Amino acid sequence: MTSIFNGLSAFPLTPADTDGAVDTAALGVLVDRLASEGVDSIGLLGSTGIYAYLDRAERLRAVAAAVEAAAGRVPLIVGVGALRTSWAQQLAGDAERAGASGLLLAPMSYTSLTDGEAAQHYRAVAGATSLPLCIYSNPGTTNFTFSDRLLAELAAVPNITAIKIPLPADEDYAGELAQLRGVTPEAFAIGYSGDWGAAPSLLAGADAWYSVVAGLLPEPALRLTQAAQAGLIDDAAMVDAAFESLWALFRTHGSLRIMYAIADRLSLDVGDPPLPLLRVEAGIVTAVEAALDQLAAI
Amino acid sequence: MTSIFNGLSAFPLTPADTDGAVDTAALGVLVDRLASEGVDSIGLLGSTGIYAYLDRAERLRAVAAAVEAAAGRVPLIVGVGALRTSWAQQLAGDAERAGASGLLLAPMSYTSLTDGEAAQHYRAVAGATSLPLCIYSNPGTTNFTFSDRLLAELAAVPNITAIKIPLPADEDYAGELAQLRGVTPEAFAIGYSGDWGAAPSLLAGADAWYSVVAGLLPEPALRLTQAAQAGLIDDAAMVDAAFESLWALFRTHGSLRIMYAIADRLSLDVGDPPLPLLRVEAGIVTAVEAALDQLAAI
Repeated sequence: MTSIFNGLSAFPLTPADTDGAVDTAALGVLVDRLASEGVDSIGLLGSTGIYAYLDRAERLRAVAAAVEAAAGRVPLIVGVGALRTSWAQQLAGDAERAGASGLLLAPMSYTSLTDGEAAQHYRAVAGATSLPLCIYSNPGTTNFTFSDRLLAELAAVPNITAIKIPLPADEDYAGELAQLRGVTPEAFAIGYSGDWGAAPSLLAGADAWYSVVAGLLPEPALRLTQAAQAGLIDDAAMVDAAFESLWALFRTHGSLRIMYAIADRLSLDVGDPPLPLLRVEAGIVTAVEAALDQLAAI
Repeated sequence: MTSIFNGLSAFPLTPADTDGAVDTAALGVLVDRLASEGVDSIGLLGSTGIYAYLDRAERLRAVAAAVEAAAGRVPLIVGVGALRTSWAQQLAGDAERAGASGLLLAPMSYTSLTDGEAAQHYRAVAGATSLPLCIYSNPGTTNFTFSDRLLAELAAVPNITAIKIPLPADEDYAGELAQLRGVTPEAFAIGYSGDWGAAPSLLAGADAWYSVVAGLLPEPALRLTQAAQAGLIDDAAMVDAAFESLWALFRTHGSLRIMYAIADRLSLDVGDPPLPLLRVEAGIVTAVEAALDQLAAI
């Protein structure tokens, strides 16, 4: 059984100016590119879509523009994370009314959350929408780690149907997938973020790749996804190897900053990173260009 | 030389409802209590003042109400942390126009910041105000650690005049203070947060105690501060020992959640914690009450 939380989910940047005003025309261009290439879903307003740096009104403008640009060709999964439960509920309502297909919810925190607090947060947001919701586990940015017990509790909520998880430190994808499938319903979808783990995680049976790079480079990301999902180990390894220089830059400098450099190289208008985040320095831009040349050669 | 960043700085809760609307009358009661007791400053909208969970309009209402209640009796240091540089600049301007005496700025982050990004963030906010600004180092909530090199750079900015730091893991207060004084100007004020480190850090020569507990219990906190600042080791140890059960609860459950239980016991109206944060369970409330009885016995 497949859902909107299966396959290649591409996470575009959200073009905006330094005051946080979204450039809806530029966002529409990015979304149209992804829909035309045939990605399985678009992850709008994810971490790569700078959701944490945009206010409610701008996030709504972004969803409306993306819905219009996608024109029904591809499901839109919209990030609705916020520090307050009431804010996340409002964002979920806004996204649903604007035409989102599903929601992505990270347990954003300032004061570290207890399991009980995270549980009531997810229940409250899921209860405020009829859309399917994907749990977004990202301990690096949220300071929160989901226990198997909490995941089992949340996966029993009818419209909480998927989880997006970071790469396992021990790279034991098969073991982690077996463990998580043991505590979640059969139709519950499990996907990874961390682009350099895409090939091994999909080969191990993950349902989805939540991909940063696909937000700007959908074509090679689709090739990697299709090869891995078909079990073509050598083909997947070949595309993965062509990405390796880019993965190294993602790991060292953060994928978000590198995405701005990729967009610049592709002459795509993405505005500016939200201050205090900055574009990378010239030396790194040169390395990004070399990595893109390597990728283009396959 | 002393500044507003010396002595006992008391951090009150910000009374609010579950939708994030500040109860300005209840906040005024808390501020008036602190001013009457004679704390050296009030740390408004700190982590304990739930700044991360309040929007700009509510934060401005809180500052205005606190300025009115303080009535010039005690300086108000206002937290202006936000994820975007432009948001923090707006909050700084709001606080200054409303009558704040100084600012407290944490390097809030979602995507982890580089040193260069943090530096431009602090310079931009400091440049947007004429108020003195205290750096708020809190790696547990912000995922950012200040290097000595970055601190030296920021301490050279004319109106960045203090830092609020967490307790050192090795408890070597004297060593840490000597190291930080070596990279900062003579008048630069260094204070600690983490209430259970107040006695040893003040005895080691720290300039300030940024105190959660003083936001509701200023009297014993002042006794501890004055004993330690006078070098009265035994007196400071005696008050510190009376606080020990409370410190243990702070460490285990988070000081913010325990503060709501203290306020309830004192019959002070503080509204509700911002969802997803919850009040502690009944068993912990009982432990808080026992800890307060122990403190009242000194």
